Amino acid sequence: MTVPDLDALLRPRSVAVVGASMTNSTNVGSRTLSQLRQFFPGRTYLVHPRATGADSAPDLASLPETVDLLVVAVPAPAVVPVVADGARLGIRAALIFTSGFAEGGAEGVAAQAELQRISAETGMLINGPNTIGFMNLHDGILATFFLPPDIELPAAGPVAIVSQSGALATYIDEMARDRGIRPGWLVTTGNEAGATVTDCLAYLVERPEVTVLAATSEGLRDPEAFVHVASRAAQLGKPLVFVKAGRSAAGMAAAQSHTASISGGDDVFDAVCRQYGVLRADSLEQALDWLSVFQTQRRLVGNRIGLLTGSGGSGVMMADVAHDVGLDVATTPAADQELIGQWIPSFGSAVNPIDVTAQAIASGVGNYQRILKTLVHSTGFDCVAVGSGLRGPQAVEVAEKIAATYGETNKPVALTWYSTNQDSRRILVDAGVPTYQDSSRAIGALGALRRFQGQTGRVTEEPVKPPDQTRVADARALLGGGPTLTEAASKKLLGLYGLPVVQEAVATTVDGTVEAAEAMAAYPVALKVLSVDLPHKSDVGGVRLGVADAAGVRHASEDILADVAEQRPDARIEGLVVQQMAPSGVELVCGVHRDPVFGPVVTVGLGGVLVEVVADVALCKAPLTLEHARSALAEVAGGRLVSHSRGISADQVDAVADIMVRLGDLAVELPEIAEIDVNPLIVSRSAILVADALVGVS
Amino acid sequence: MTVPDLDALLRPRSVAVVGASMTNSTNVGSRTLSQLRQFFPGRTYLVHPRATGADSAPDLASLPETVDLLVVAVPAPAVVPVVADGARLGIRAALIFTSGFAEGGAEGVAAQAELQRISAETGMLINGPNTIGFMNLHDGILATFFLPPDIELPAAGPVAIVSQSGALATYIDEMARDRGIRPGWLVTTGNEAGATVTDCLAYLVERPEVTVLAATSEGLRDPEAFVHVASRAAQLGKPLVFVKAGRSAAGMAAAQSHTASISGGDDVFDAVCRQYGVLRADSLEQALDWLSVFQTQRRLVGNRIGLLTGSGGSGVMMADVAHDVGLDVATTPAADQELIGQWIPSFGSAVNPIDVTAQAIASGVGNYQRILKTLVHSTGFDCVAVGSGLRGPQAVEVAEKIAATYGETNKPVALTWYSTNQDSRRILVDAGVPTYQDSSRAIGALGALRRFQGQTGRVTEEPVKPPDQTRVADARALLGGGPTLTEAASKKLLGLYGLPVVQEAVATTVDGTVEAAEAMAAYPVALKVLSVDLPHKSDVGGVRLGVADAAGVRHASEDILADVAEQRPDARIEGLVVQQMAPSGVELVCGVHRDPVFGPVVTVGLGGVLVEVVADVALCKAPLTLEHARSALAEVAGGRLVSHSRGISADQVDAVADIMVRLGDLAVELPEIAEIDVNPLIVSRSAILVADALVGVS
Repeated sequence: MTVPDLDALLRPRSVAVVGASMTNSTNVGSRTLSQLRQFFPGRTYLVHPRATGADSAPDLASLPETVDLLVVAVPAPAVVPVVADGARLGIRAALIFTSGFAEGGAEGVAAQAELQRISAETGMLINGPNTIGFMNLHDGILATFFLPPDIELPAAGPVAIVSQSGALATYIDEMARDRGIRPGWLVTTGNEAGATVTDCLAYLVERPEVTVLAATSEGLRDPEAFVHVASRAAQLGKPLVFVKAGRSAAGMAAAQSHTASISGGDDVFDAVCRQYGVLRADSLEQALDWLSVFQTQRRLVGNRIGLLTGSGGSGVMMADVAHDVGLDVATTPAADQELIGQWIPSFGSAVNPIDVTAQAIASGVGNYQRILKTLVHSTGFDCVAVGSGLRGPQAVEVAEKIAATYGETNKPVALTWYSTNQDSRRILVDAGVPTYQDSSRAIGALGALRRFQGQTGRVTEEPVKPPDQTRVADARALLGGGPTLTEAASKKLLGLYGLPVVQEAVATTVDGTVEAAEAMAAYPVALKVLSVDLPHKSDVGGVRLGVADAAGVRHASEDILADVAEQRPDARIEGLVVQQMAPSGVELVCGVHRDPVFGPVVTVGLGGVLVEVVADVALCKAPLTLEHARSALAEVAGGRLVSHSRGISADQVDAVADIMVRLGDLAVELPEIAEIDVNPLIVSRSAILVADALVGVS
Repeated sequence: MTVPDLDALLRPRSVAVVGASMTNSTNVGSRTLSQLRQFFPGRTYLVHPRATGADSAPDLASLPETVDLLVVAVPAPAVVPVVADGARLGIRAALIFTSGFAEGGAEGVAAQAELQRISAETGMLINGPNTIGFMNLHDGILATFFLPPDIELPAAGPVAIVSQSGALATYIDEMARDRGIRPGWLVTTGNEAGATVTDCLAYLVERPEVTVLAATSEGLRDPEAFVHVASRAAQLGKPLVFVKAGRSAAGMAAAQSHTASISGGDDVFDAVCRQYGVLRADSLEQALDWLSVFQTQRRLVGNRIGLLTGSGGSGVMMADVAHDVGLDVATTPAADQELIGQWIPSFGSAVNPIDVTAQAIASGVGNYQRILKTLVHSTGFDCVAVGSGLRGPQAVEVAEKIAATYGETNKPVALTWYSTNQDSRRILVDAGVPTYQDSSRAIGALGALRRFQGQTGRVTEEPVKPPDQTRVADARALLGGGPTLTEAASKKLLGLYGLPVVQEAVATTVDGTVEAAEAMAAYPVALKVLSVDLPHKSDVGGVRLGVADAAGVRHASEDILADVAEQRPDARIEGLVVQQMAPSGVELVCGVHRDPVFGPVVTVGLGGVLVEVVADVALCKAPLTLEHARSALAEVAGGRLVSHSRGISADQVDAVADIMVRLGDLAVELPEIAEIDVNPLIVSRSAILVADALVGVS
C-alpha cells in the first residue's frame, strides 16, 4: 500500500481562507485566518469580495499564486461552488469547516456526494466538511478555530492525535496539555468526505517527528488500510492507541444514527487490534493515561517493577495492580535493600513494595531522594512506580526531588501524586514525569507499555498468498447445491484445504467395506447402515462402533446387514458407511464468519455440549499467520487452554493454529462461503480431527 | 450481635492529652490538643508534669474529672504505663498515636499484646497504636494531627470513612473534599490493638447522621462481624463501599509482610461482598467516584438513563458505558423529543443519546438549560448523565445553569465536565453535582448505584439454624477412616444431608441384584462386577450399562458372571454392584472448601471434562440462603448458565440452589470436613443427581 500524500493539506506552504468576515472577528473563518497569520511562516490570503491589500484577493481566480490549501468557512449552500472553483484552479487541498452535509438531511447528503465527486475527479484532498480542522505545531499551522485568540503557540511534541469528532478533539487537547502530554499534531476529520481517520494515521505514522499516535472514531471506513497502518506503527515501534466508540449494542445504535456508519462486531475490532498491535483503550481518560508514558519514549527491557510508597496500605494496592497488568513485583536486590535499609525506620520495608513510611519522609526529603535514586538505578527493576502523598510546602520540595531524579534515568517511571496541591503537580508534569491521581492508573499505564512491547514483536503484515486456482476450482465444484453444504461435501471442502477430516467411505458390499477400511488404515472404525428409511440406525442394529481390524469389519458388516434385514426387511439399503472413529480428547470449536467491516474472521474456542453456555471464543481476521492463530489460542479460557495440563500441548497448539490458518485461506479464496462451523475439532494425544463440520454458502 | 459502644472513644464529652509538648507546637500531641480546643465544645485537658492552669494537670490522677478519652502521644516505652494508669483511674477510652508496636519488632509486639490485655481486662476502648486518630465533625472533634493548623472546621456531611492506614485516610480525605464529597466521620484504626475497621463500621452504620460508608483495609480480623455490618448497612439502605488491598498474590505477600494479617482467598472476599451487598471498588479513585453519587441520597426507581451531550462521538461512548453497567439507553418519550427538537439543529438528535451539538450550546445556554430541564423532569428516564465541554467564560455560565437545574430534581445525575476550568468545576462541586473528568467514570458511578439497589434487596442476615444433632451424629459415624472418605461413604454422607445421590447397592447373588434393582426403582441401571482383582472391569465383560428392567438385570448379571469366569477364572468375585444410571444433562461441579478468613465456602460451576480449563466457579460463604445460591448460579458463565436455552431452567436453578444450601449446612455442622467435591452434579430434564463425590476430612 502507498502512503497517502497529504502534504498539501496538512503541511501546506500557502493557504487561502474563504468565508472570513471583514467585520466579525469571532467568525470561524476570521479566527482561523488570524491564528494562521500569528504563527504560520508560509503565505496566507484572505479571499473576500471586498478585501483589499497584498495578502488578499476578491476571488480565488485573482490569487497571486495557486495555494496549496483552501480553507472554506462559507455557508453550506456556497461550499460546493467554492470547492469546485478551487479544484478547477488547481488548488490541491480543501479544509471545509461548514456543517450541514451528510449529518443534516437529504440535501446535505447530496452536497457531500458532490464534494466526493470533485475529490475523486480532480484528486483534490478534502478535510471535512463539518470538521474543526487541524493543528500542525511543527510547522506552526493552526488551521482551526477552537483555541482562544490570545494563546502562545504550544510546544510541538511527539504525539499525533486524530479524531473524527471535533468536540472530542478539543477535550483531548485540553486534557492532554493539562497532564503534560505534548501533541505536535491534532487532526479532526469530521464527515470524512475526503481524508479519513485512517488516511491521517497512515500519513502521520511515517512522519519522523511523530513517535506516538492516538485516534478516536465511531466507525472505520477503510478496514484494510487500518490494518496496514497498524502494521506500520508496529514495525516502526510507534504505539498506536485507539478509542473506538460504539462498543455495545446501545453505542452502535447511537453511532449508526449519528454517522450512518456500518458497525462490525466489536469483538472483531478488538481481535484486529490485538492481532496488529493496536492498543485499544476503554475510555479517553485511559488513552491519555497511556500517552503520558508512551510519549517519554522510555521502554521496558524486562517485566520487573519496583514499587516505592510512604504507606504500607498503598504499597499493597500498587502490588495488586502490578500483578493485574502482568508486571512482576520482584524482590529488591540484596545490595539495594541494604542501602535503602539505612534510610528507613525498622518498621518500613526495603523488600518491594518499598515502604519508606511517613516518618522517613517527615524526617527530610534527602533520604527519600536517595532511596528513589537507588530504585531507578537498580539492576533489579525494569520500571518504577512511585506513590507519594504530601501536603503543604513539603509537597513542592518532594516534587522537585522526584523531577530531578526522573531526569537521571531512562527507565519508565509512573508517579501517583496523592495531593491536590497544584504547584507541586505542575513541577512534575512540566518535567515530563507521567503523573496520576491513582496508582491503578499509573501502573495501568506501565502495563500498557508492557503490552505494547509484548505484542508488537508479533505483528507482521497479513500474509497475502496467491490463491491456488486448481484448489479454488475443485472447491467451487462442491458449492451450488443450496445455502448449506451436506456433511460429506463440507468435509470434502475442508479436506481440499488440508484439514484433517474424519475419513469415511460408502461401500455397497461386505468386501467393499473391508477394502475401504483397509484403504483408510485408521482403525478403530465405525460401521453404519446407509438408508433413507432408517433415520434411527442404532435401534435396528444398524451401527457397530470400535471395530478394530479387517476381520472385525467383515464380521460387523455381515451382522448389520443380517440384523437390519431381520428387523426392517422393507428398508431400502444403499450401502454401509465406514467411518474413522474420533478419539476422545479436548473438544474445540473452530469456524469462519464474515464481519460487515473486516470481512472473513476465524474463530476458535472450547467445544463440548456446553459450547453455547461457555461461549469462550477467540477471533482472528483472515488471512492470518500461525503466530496470530497461536496468540488467539492463548486467549481461550483465560489462557488456560494452552497453559493448563488438562488443556492442549505446544505441539497441539501448532497443529490447531495450522488448521486456523487454512480456514482463513479458504475464507479468503472463496468469498461465497458465508460461514464454516467445525464442531467438534477433536484434539487427542494421537490425532487432531475434524469430527463434524457444516459449511454455509451465501 | 450487639453494636460496639464506642461513644467514649468517638463521641467523648471530655478529653485529656498526654504527650503534648509545652514548647514545641508542631509536636503530635500539641497539634491535636490545639485542634481539639479550637472546635470541641467539651472539656479538654493537657496532662504534663510542668503544666499549670485550669485546663491542665501534672498527671492523670490529678485531673478534676474522669475523662472519657485519653489521647496518648508519648514515646513508645511510656505508652503502656500511661494507658494502664488511665484504665486504673476508670478512663474508658484511649487513642494512641505512638508508632513502634506490632509493626516494629519483638519488643513492639509484646507492648501491643500488653495494650490488648489491658483492654480485655478493663473494657477500655483502644484506637491504635500507630494511628492518626479520627475526625468526628458532627461533634466538632478533630482528634488528629494531620490537618494544617489554621483550617476552618469542615462542614459535617453524611459520609463516614474508615481506614486502617493513616496515609490512605489523609489521601482519601483530601481527594474527597476536592470532589465535593462531605465526610462527617473519618476514623483510622492503625494497628488495631482495640477497635478494628469492622468495629468502627458497626458503630457508624447505626449513626443516624451517616448515610454512606466507605472503608479500606488490607485484612479483616473479624469476618463474622463484617458480615453482620454488611447486613445492617443493607437493611438500613446505606451503601457500604470497600476497597480491599491485597487482591493478588503479590499484593497479599506485601500485606502479610506489612501487617502480618492472614489473607483469605480474594475470590471469597469478593463473594462475601456480593452476598451481603458490599460494593467493592477496585481502587480508591473508583470508591470516590461512587461516593459522589451515593452521598446525594438520590435513588433509582428504574433502569433507564437519559444521555445528554454536545458531541455525537461522546454520546456514543456514553451509551457504551451505560450498556456496560446495565443501564438502559431508553428512547426519549415522544413529547419530550418534540420539545427538545425545537432547541437543537436538524443534525442533532433528541432520541437518546440527546446530541444538542456544539452549535446549540454556542447559540446560547438558555436552550441548553431548557433541554436539561426537560430531561431531568422526563418520565422516560430514571437517571441522567450529562457530558459537557466548554472553554472560557461560557463554561462558568453553563456550570451555573447545570447546578441550578440539578437542584430542581431528585433524580440521580452524573456530570462529565470536559474542562480543566477550575472555576466552573468549583461551582458544580459546591452545588453537590457529582462531577467527573470522564464519562466512563460518571456513568460507572450510576451503575454502582444500580448495583447497590439491585443487590441490597436480596441481602438477609445469614440463616443460623440449630444443627440437627441426630444427623450430625450419623454423619460423624462415617468419618474417621482417613483423610479421604471412600466414594460410598462420601455419597452416604451427602445423602444424610438430603442430596440426591446416585443410588447403588451391592448384591452377592443374581437374585440379590434383581431385588436391589427393584428396590431402588430407578431404571435404567448399570451392573458392575466387584472384585479387587479386576481393576479394568469392562475389559473382561464385567460391565453392562442401560439395563431396563428386572428380567434384564437377571440376564445381565448371569452374563457378567459367565464372561468373567471364562476370561479371569482366578479372580475373587465379591459381588455385583447395581447402580442407578446417571441421565445425560448439564454437568456441574459443586463443592465446599474452607477459607482461612471466612471459613466454609460453597462453590458451583460448569463441569465436564474441561472443568479445570473452564475454571468458571461462583462462591458463597456458608451458611447461605436459597437466594444467595441462586445469585451465585446467576454468575456462572457470565450469566449464561441460567439464561441460555442450553443452560438450566428456573426449576433446576432452585433444585441446585437447594443442594448448595444443604452443602453449606453440612460444612457448618461438621467443621472437621475439609472439602467436598461433587463432580459431576448432573442436571437433566428428569432428575438432578450427584453422580460422583469425594469428601476430605481434616
